[in-house]
Amino acid sequence: MLARYIPILDWGRHYNRDRFGRDAVAAIIVTIMLIPQSLAYALLAGLPPEVGLYASILPLIAYAIFGSSTSLAVGPVAVVSLMTAAAVGRLAAEGTADYASAAIVLALLSGGMLVVLGLFKLGFLANFLSHPVIAGFISASGIIIATSQLGALLGISSHGHAMPELVTSLWVHIDQINLYTLAVGAASLVALVWIRTGLKSQLLAIGVSPAAAIFAVRAGPVAVVLVAIAASAIFGLGDKGVALVGDVPQGLPMLSLPNLSLDLVLALAGPAFIITVVGFVESISVAQTLAAKKRERIDPDQELIGLGAANIAAAIGSGYPVTGGFARSVVNHDAGAATPAAGAFTAVGIAIATIVLTPFLALLPKAVLAATIIVAVLSLVDLSILKKALNYARADFAAVAITLGVTLVAGVEPGISSGIIASIAIFLYRTSRPHTAVVGRVPGTEHFRNVLRHEVEVAPHILSLRVDESLYFANARFLEDRIAGLVAEQPGIRHVVLMCPAINAIDMSALESLEAINMRLADQGIDLHLSEVKGPVMDRLRHTDFLERLSGKVFLSQHQAIAELE
Amino acid sequence: MLARYIPILDWGRHYNRDRFGRDAVAAIIVTIMLIPQSLAYALLAGLPPEVGLYASILPLIAYAIFGSSTSLAVGPVAVVSLMTAAAVGRLAAEGTADYASAAIVLALLSGGMLVVLGLFKLGFLANFLSHPVIAGFISASGIIIATSQLGALLGISSHGHAMPELVTSLWVHIDQINLYTLAVGAASLVALVWIRTGLKSQLLAIGVSPAAAIFAVRAGPVAVVLVAIAASAIFGLGDKGVALVGDVPQGLPMLSLPNLSLDLVLALAGPAFIITVVGFVESISVAQTLAAKKRERIDPDQELIGLGAANIAAAIGSGYPVTGGFARSVVNHDAGAATPAAGAFTAVGIAIATIVLTPFLALLPKAVLAATIIVAVLSLVDLSILKKALNYARADFAAVAITLGVTLVAGVEPGISSGIIASIAIFLYRTSRPHTAVVGRVPGTEHFRNVLRHEVEVAPHILSLRVDESLYFANARFLEDRIAGLVAEQPGIRHVVLMCPAINAIDMSALESLEAINMRLADQGIDLHLSEVKGPVMDRLRHTDFLERLSGKVFLSQHQAIAELE
Repeated sequence: MLARYIPILDWGRHYNRDRFGRDAVAAIIVTIMLIPQSLAYALLAGLPPEVGLYASILPLIAYAIFGSSTSLAVGPVAVVSLMTAAAVGRLAAEGTADYASAAIVLALLSGGMLVVLGLFKLGFLANFLSHPVIAGFISASGIIIATSQLGALLGISSHGHAMPELVTSLWVHIDQINLYTLAVGAASLVALVWIRTGLKSQLLAIGVSPAAAIFAVRAGPVAVVLVAIAASAIFGLGDKGVALVGDVPQGLPMLSLPNLSLDLVLALAGPAFIITVVGFVESISVAQTLAAKKRERIDPDQELIGLGAANIAAAIGSGYPVTGGFARSVVNHDAGAATPAAGAFTAVGIAIATIVLTPFLALLPKAVLAATIIVAVLSLVDLSILKKALNYARADFAAVAITLGVTLVAGVEPGISSGIIASIAIFLYRTSRPHTAVVGRVPGTEHFRNVLRHEVEVAPHILSLRVDESLYFANARFLEDRIAGLVAEQPGIRHVVLMCPAINAIDMSALESLEAINMRLADQGIDLHLSEVKGPVMDRLRHTDFLERLSGKVFLSQHQAIAELE
Repeated sequence: MLARYIPILDWGRHYNRDRFGRDAVAAIIVTIMLIPQSLAYALLAGLPPEVGLYASILPLIAYAIFGSSTSLAVGPVAVVSLMTAAAVGRLAAEGTADYASAAIVLALLSGGMLVVLGLFKLGFLANFLSHPVIAGFISASGIIIATSQLGALLGISSHGHAMPELVTSLWVHIDQINLYTLAVGAASLVALVWIRTGLKSQLLAIGVSPAAAIFAVRAGPVAVVLVAIAASAIFGLGDKGVALVGDVPQGLPMLSLPNLSLDLVLALAGPAFIITVVGFVESISVAQTLAAKKRERIDPDQELIGLGAANIAAAIGSGYPVTGGFARSVVNHDAGAATPAAGAFTAVGIAIATIVLTPFLALLPKAVLAATIIVAVLSLVDLSILKKALNYARADFAAVAITLGVTLVAGVEPGISSGIIASIAIFLYRTSRPHTAVVGRVPGTEHFRNVLRHEVEVAPHILSLRVDESLYFANARFLEDRIAGLVAEQPGIRHVVLMCPAINAIDMSALESLEAINMRLADQGIDLHLSEVKGPVMDRLRHTDFLERLSGKVFLSQHQAIAELE
């Protein structure tokens, strides 16, 4: 029973040396990858860089205990960092104690929401974040994040969490460009892009083993950081106007619970919910994809609890909201992680780095971290989704375009909210005007087809209408209008047969409409019949007096209906 | 072309003496019915009684020009009067000039919205007001309205537009009961109930003709008003603490356009939209029912324009929001109204009454009007909808109960909003967990049925799953989980066949899920096949590369699929 909610009690009993070896190797590789990213994403969130390291320690241990994925690597990620900055930036100024503690409260709220959603099995709520919305949102976030880092890369100050403000503030300060900063940033950018795209093939070409080449690619960003620190020390970059990370407190974070004021909780509840949903959707899709490769199964509700525990741990350990990262989870999987213990070992690695590395960080130019972020997030931007959606359906294109556009112009929260509302509205609109077809018999068969598409036989006194959608409040009156219109066009009609094989449900409003249709047709001397009604729908109709009041009959098949009425 | 938007240009050309006679008789009967109701509903809306008469003149003429129903009688109605009081009461104190002009702006806004909805053919938006929501809302409004009139009936002051405030204010002032007022109110109530329930059969019993008996029932409320005015004059009720209507300006309203301030428009836009939707839904359903009796057809978009013109006319003529009334439309229809001209003649009748009657109104006790309202609205209260909904489906019951409860406790706007949101949420929830069935072949046939309900044959290496719902973002991941679960349970599976006859659409999120399912199954060495895919769905899939990437095939029928895979 307890093991159901705490998976470590299950897999922990079968833990062995082989698995330890695989987990430890994966942990080393992920640790190396995570160090520069943690520092950079904390800056993106408007927090001191060490907070990124803190958010990569306790949360990973909590997820190892409560999480169910053997591949997912949690920690700070770019999109959630941007969302944190947008949410907290409205309440406090960057660099203040209020700002940091608001980020902690945000993590606690999001963690609590995730756990509650998991315990009450409400993970399906995340399904309302449709694929077009999440794709448009992630691309727009990537563009905003990359733009937000241009300031640090050029050595000028910029601010804002959406494009208009960001671009304006960059433009206004464009004369402040610091050429040393630009040189450091550009060099880092070139180095990081080269590590990502060219290093592996060049190493393989000179005979390095594939494993070593892959390790070099993973370790590359850390090497860039170390080189930059060395260059900063040698050339005294800080004195030349290059912004450095500055003094970072050495050692592990203190454990504490945040001060919760009701005002703060109310102000952060909305953003926390959006972060919760976005973080969960991103995590669960990567976790499920990687689980399938191992023929394992992910329990979405347990994942909610695991991610919730990670965020609560982030709050206790002076961090900020975390979630499962796509790139690092793939790396974790490829490196052979066998159990969630790999995450706990990564946490140990980051803890050691936090103690050892922090003295050197003071000299690190911020432009290097900006370059790290830009290279990481540009892979999120995939505008081909617009073309793909346009090819597929206008409704999906509209959802992508609205989410992308509103996110870019107005920021992450309005963007994702309007995307969700738009995709629900589009779905409701589509189902409110269902496809209907007047049908006739294909000669010599028992099949009935659309009169507009096929050569079929129709009796002049019978109208047969097929409805290709469940009937519910939003389309009930549409059906009333459709039948009234068809009957008005053909005065000779004596029978209307509603063909129902695609009607999976009829709600009370639709029942009311059917009763109104029945009554109005009866007033005109026309009988209403149903055919091919599904079992569950028929069960429900039997609970009412509709079938008694129906002027016509219910036929098992359309063929029987026509045979009898002709 | 012009006649399409101005129906009078069409029916006006065929107008003749016979139709004039029928319309005139109907107009006389509706006028007599409308006089006390107009006065009473204006008081309910917190406005001077003459405003109710004003709202029954110009709007009726405008509807006669632009409306398409030959039976609908527009004017002030109880529910919209309550909604007006709730909306305007937040902005100004009753009895002030600001209050009256806010009600005028509300009518103008609602009229403008109706016309815009009509011109852009957006009448389908009203469909989102489901039957359970409107039923719960109307019943709750009836209870609130009846309660709000108890104060006037007892001679005590009360206020509020929802039950907690109303009941509290009645309770606090219970010691102020005026026995004269109570006597007038109770006598009126008894008289009105008797006119409605007993008068007709008693008149018939003493040999009065049915037509005369029905006329007596219609004229009864006006007789009660006249008797009350006489009693008030004879006994000097005003001096005994009975609240009287007081001086009413004689003559017709001045025509004017309201002063529009942006603040006022913004404050009233939300309530105006809700009044628009509620008023339209109530009107269209009675108009359609009465039209069917005459084998006529109502154009919902033209009805929007007609009701919009009526409300704009209400604003110009110093009135307040109007809509089609149920009871008076039925009376109009029964009395033989042949064209919308009956409404214009009613307007003439009310205009004459406004000039002739106003001097006498000063002496009318308000308790009589309160009794008129109570008798009229109690027929709106129908709590049997709760039982009916519970019998039919829990989802519909929840929608009724939420709307009813929230309206009673928090008022009309929160009530109807939460009802709409709840019914949409319930619909989305239901479609997000579609019915699915593992199917097998009924022995000796080509039919496939649910393995849980029927004795069927299943091949151990084939999983056939039928999904009884269109696939879209909210249920796409549900399908991923369902298939992953089924495959994990049965390790011998080599083929998964998705049987799609009830899938009317697949959106881009669902396509993404199908691609993920296909890829994950392929990782496990399992082929994914589809069967019985509908034409429009297949057309859309052909626009993508999904069919090329599909590890299995698309079969025309489930029988073919099993025959080939076995």
